[in-house]
Amino acid sequence: MFITIEGGEGAGKSTMMERMVTWLEDRGHKVVPTREPGGTELAEKLRAILLDKNTVGLSDQAELLLMFASRAQHLAEVIRPALQRGETVLCDRFTDATWAYQGGGRGLPLDDIAILERLVHGDLQPDLTVLLDLPVAQGLRRASRRGEADRFEEESSGFFERVRQAYLRRAESAPGRFAVVDASGSMEEVWSQVDGILQARLPA
Amino acid sequence: MFITIEGGEGAGKSTMMERMVTWLEDRGHKVVPTREPGGTELAEKLRAILLDKNTVGLSDQAELLLMFASRAQHLAEVIRPALQRGETVLCDRFTDATWAYQGGGRGLPLDDIAILERLVHGDLQPDLTVLLDLPVAQGLRRASRRGEADRFEEESSGFFERVRQAYLRRAESAPGRFAVVDASGSMEEVWSQVDGILQARLPA
Repeated sequence: MFITIEGGEGAGKSTMMERMVTWLEDRGHKVVPTREPGGTELAEKLRAILLDKNTVGLSDQAELLLMFASRAQHLAEVIRPALQRGETVLCDRFTDATWAYQGGGRGLPLDDIAILERLVHGDLQPDLTVLLDLPVAQGLRRASRRGEADRFEEESSGFFERVRQAYLRRAESAPGRFAVVDASGSMEEVWSQVDGILQARLPA
Repeated sequence: MFITIEGGEGAGKSTMMERMVTWLEDRGHKVVPTREPGGTELAEKLRAILLDKNTVGLSDQAELLLMFASRAQHLAEVIRPALQRGETVLCDRFTDATWAYQGGGRGLPLDDIAILERLVHGDLQPDLTVLLDLPVAQGLRRASRRGEADRFEEESSGFFERVRQAYLRRAESAPGRFAVVDASGSMEEVWSQVDGILQARLPA
């Protein structure tokens, strides 16, 4: 199985990732937890470039292509081999994040994203995508407690509002794959929703 | 004007670049000499990854996307602004090299390259491309005198034969843009051909 977790800043992805790994392992899954951008040595180098605040003047299209270069490597080196071994891949962000951040946030042509998605993994989509949704202001308050912001976290709240709306549109377009979770509550409240989704969607 | 110079290993691109810069400057062009992969701070970082022999296991598709990410940045930051200022851009390798190395050499689907070319610079092609062509064995002998080989230079002669043939097919497909030069002779013999091409193709 290929499961992804998505959401804006401060949505609580890391905590939910950890709990999902435990939940899956308790039920006998061999879990490969990974993340994007990143997940391979090369892609972590690209992640460093992409998130570095000193990376100035990066064109939107170069950013988009770097995201997909990183993803192509991640798919070739980690995701596809793990799925072929029958393992469960749990990935912190995937192509939906590109639709949200580069499409919604940066306003890049959605056609370009669709073309690259088809090129890089047209044959492969997640089996389940958990989208942690919460109001932008609340997410940014939570994220700010974590310390210094990266290149994306320094964007305006208008940017993050567009990211949120793009995520929700993406979920509407693929309701069979997405599960939208209200992430505005306490960690326990959020987990109880995610737990319910896993129970409903994953065959025992 | 946008002029590119292409060719396999040991074709003598660097020497011809220098002479072309002088030729153009003598005739009043403001010349921006640049190269791919590279030409910007970000793209030089990517170039370092792409050419580093320690970059192992890079998937062919990730390599292709990195080439175009680097190119998108180069276009946004250097090539398009220079052309808009009325300057002459002289670039050591451009998208034809991707057709030759990733398409011919690596055997990546040409459709994928065409899609990315259209995405990144569908509206812009070089006005003139000088292709320095010579037998593979001769080029490799010349290149080997330069010292240590990079990640591409370590490929087999079969790889470089495919690169050469892909370059020649590309030239056939766009005869109005390409000028193919026999680069097997002495530097002076090669330059005399390039000089003739510049005189014929560039309005005084």
